[in-house]
Amino acid sequence: MLVSSRDLESFCVQALLKAGLVESDARLTADVLVTTDAWGVFTHGTKNLCGYIRRLRGGGIRATAKPRIEREGPAWTIIDGEGALGTVASTFAMRAAVTKAKAAGIGYVGVHNSCHFGAAGYYAALAAHENLIGVAMSNDTPTMTAPGGSKPVLGSNPFAFAAPTGEKHPILLDMATSAVAGGKVFAAAALGKPIPENWIVDADGRPATDPKLFPDSAALLPMAGHKGYGLALLIEILSAVLTGAAVTRQVLSWSFADPSLATNHGAAFIAVDIISIMPPNVFKQRVTEMIQEIRQSPKAIGCDRIFVPGEMEWERRERALAQGIELPPDVVTSLRTLAGEMDLRPDWLRD
Amino acid sequence: MLVSSRDLESFCVQALLKAGLVESDARLTADVLVTTDAWGVFTHGTKNLCGYIRRLRGGGIRATAKPRIEREGPAWTIIDGEGALGTVASTFAMRAAVTKAKAAGIGYVGVHNSCHFGAAGYYAALAAHENLIGVAMSNDTPTMTAPGGSKPVLGSNPFAFAAPTGEKHPILLDMATSAVAGGKVFAAAALGKPIPENWIVDADGRPATDPKLFPDSAALLPMAGHKGYGLALLIEILSAVLTGAAVTRQVLSWSFADPSLATNHGAAFIAVDIISIMPPNVFKQRVTEMIQEIRQSPKAIGCDRIFVPGEMEWERRERALAQGIELPPDVVTSLRTLAGEMDLRPDWLRD
Repeated sequence: MLVSSRDLESFCVQALLKAGLVESDARLTADVLVTTDAWGVFTHGTKNLCGYIRRLRGGGIRATAKPRIEREGPAWTIIDGEGALGTVASTFAMRAAVTKAKAAGIGYVGVHNSCHFGAAGYYAALAAHENLIGVAMSNDTPTMTAPGGSKPVLGSNPFAFAAPTGEKHPILLDMATSAVAGGKVFAAAALGKPIPENWIVDADGRPATDPKLFPDSAALLPMAGHKGYGLALLIEILSAVLTGAAVTRQVLSWSFADPSLATNHGAAFIAVDIISIMPPNVFKQRVTEMIQEIRQSPKAIGCDRIFVPGEMEWERRERALAQGIELPPDVVTSLRTLAGEMDLRPDWLRD
Repeated sequence: MLVSSRDLESFCVQALLKAGLVESDARLTADVLVTTDAWGVFTHGTKNLCGYIRRLRGGGIRATAKPRIEREGPAWTIIDGEGALGTVASTFAMRAAVTKAKAAGIGYVGVHNSCHFGAAGYYAALAAHENLIGVAMSNDTPTMTAPGGSKPVLGSNPFAFAAPTGEKHPILLDMATSAVAGGKVFAAAALGKPIPENWIVDADGRPATDPKLFPDSAALLPMAGHKGYGLALLIEILSAVLTGAAVTRQVLSWSFADPSLATNHGAAFIAVDIISIMPPNVFKQRVTEMIQEIRQSPKAIGCDRIFVPGEMEWERRERALAQGIELPPDVVTSLRTLAGEMDLRPDWLRD
């Protein structure tokens, strides 16, 4: 279904206002989710609004919560999310990281008492839009095994970074530390298709190709084996161990757990202030030369283009803003469910 | 060949003194290289001393260089390595990062005019031994392709982190952002064995299984495709773009390029001061609970143990310190070559 980003955003804002958010938080959350859809990352966009709002209505996310600085130092801040939406706590946190970085050169901000924050890349890009290098990461309820294990021990802990360039858009990498995000396994299950052998293991820890086993009788494999496992541990340490958030299996599932309970996700944000360290035009020239050289390097047989991280997403977003967003059926279904539950009837969402 | 770490270290110190280093730098470098061998990471240990010393004697690395703080702010420092050994510049830099972190909570230190620094994990561990979280990374001469490309555009840029625990040793991850380190491809070539399809691509960008093609007619693939490519770019930005070091193909090969030339590697070090943010005993208890839970989680069929990152390496090191280090043949050959070139004749290295 094709929808304009304005209509989609307006629907999100209405639903969030009905769920009790103040307008600024509703608009901010709508921007996170619609930007994510516009990037083509539909697993982390408006599809999840239905789940967020169930938890808002259940009380597990607090609609009127105001995240606050709990303690801080010259280049760091710990933020109590106060049970707010992950979008609200994380935007507040990345802004705090940018403030610290502008004063000290680099800033680390850890968050506890937050929830699922959607696409990590959104927050990294916030920093890049202000000419800083931004890093965002979060823990999550365990769905991923360690090498040699058969059961989930860590979340598919996402990691994102963004860096400004001399071009229109920042470099933007947003990745799970699992081999693939859980959403891709669900998508294969919905299509009844087998999955490659290196995505999940069954309950005995053996590679499995049946996506329906996940998540009850299977766990995601870490990306690149011990490397993804190690990076997920670093993310868990910076996002949760050091922030006071729930660690590994203490984190509740934002989508499956009792919606009256706080999930207590943790997250971490790092910003590096380029202008403190190097004249920004020199930095941008150096970055631009690097990415242009990579783009212009010889292509593999059958490939006609090398992309810079985020380039596909920014191009999709430009098309989406001009021509509308083509929502996949699972997103439309989720939005229709939400519309029913919230008694909203946007024209574009009619059957 | 079995050698005591003391004998191996003493040999390294003698060779480095003969190459013109002051004793403190010689001891520091020997410790980096022998610790790396003791971890079992023989591709990055004393095997490389022969190459470092050739470059020292050629003038491309300056034996008496003293890395210096070029500019700094509350939580950041840029260091001019002054063409010193990577070990010397990087140890100086991680110490500077620890100093900044103790004052500000987090510290970023970038280095230019350095050389190959060996195992990134050594520097990350330096911070962890002082109860900080340490991160170390470096760029290198391109050997790795981007997805869709056929030629090297980035180094196999290493990334390491270490975090203190309530146990004897820190968590320690040290990884290349390529699918495998180039050394593993060389090792397969030496044994005449084919390699898996996802390690390298040939000159046309097609997956190749003949390790002899590398590096002249093949490039390493990034770890986990676009993820390793993206992480390598982040490392290049923090290590080189922002520090003023050589970027991508401007970096010379420390082993193959004319030894009279400076390679101008860049590197970056980040330290996070736990005590600024959380009582260290609370942090350590939280980390220890997490890793014990992971270790005790159910094993996959055929596996009897789940390791924490670095655990294998620390156990190997304890054995090595007690029983000696079993050097592989390629390391022995390299050390014998070096002994010949430096006119050193340690008993243990005799044929």
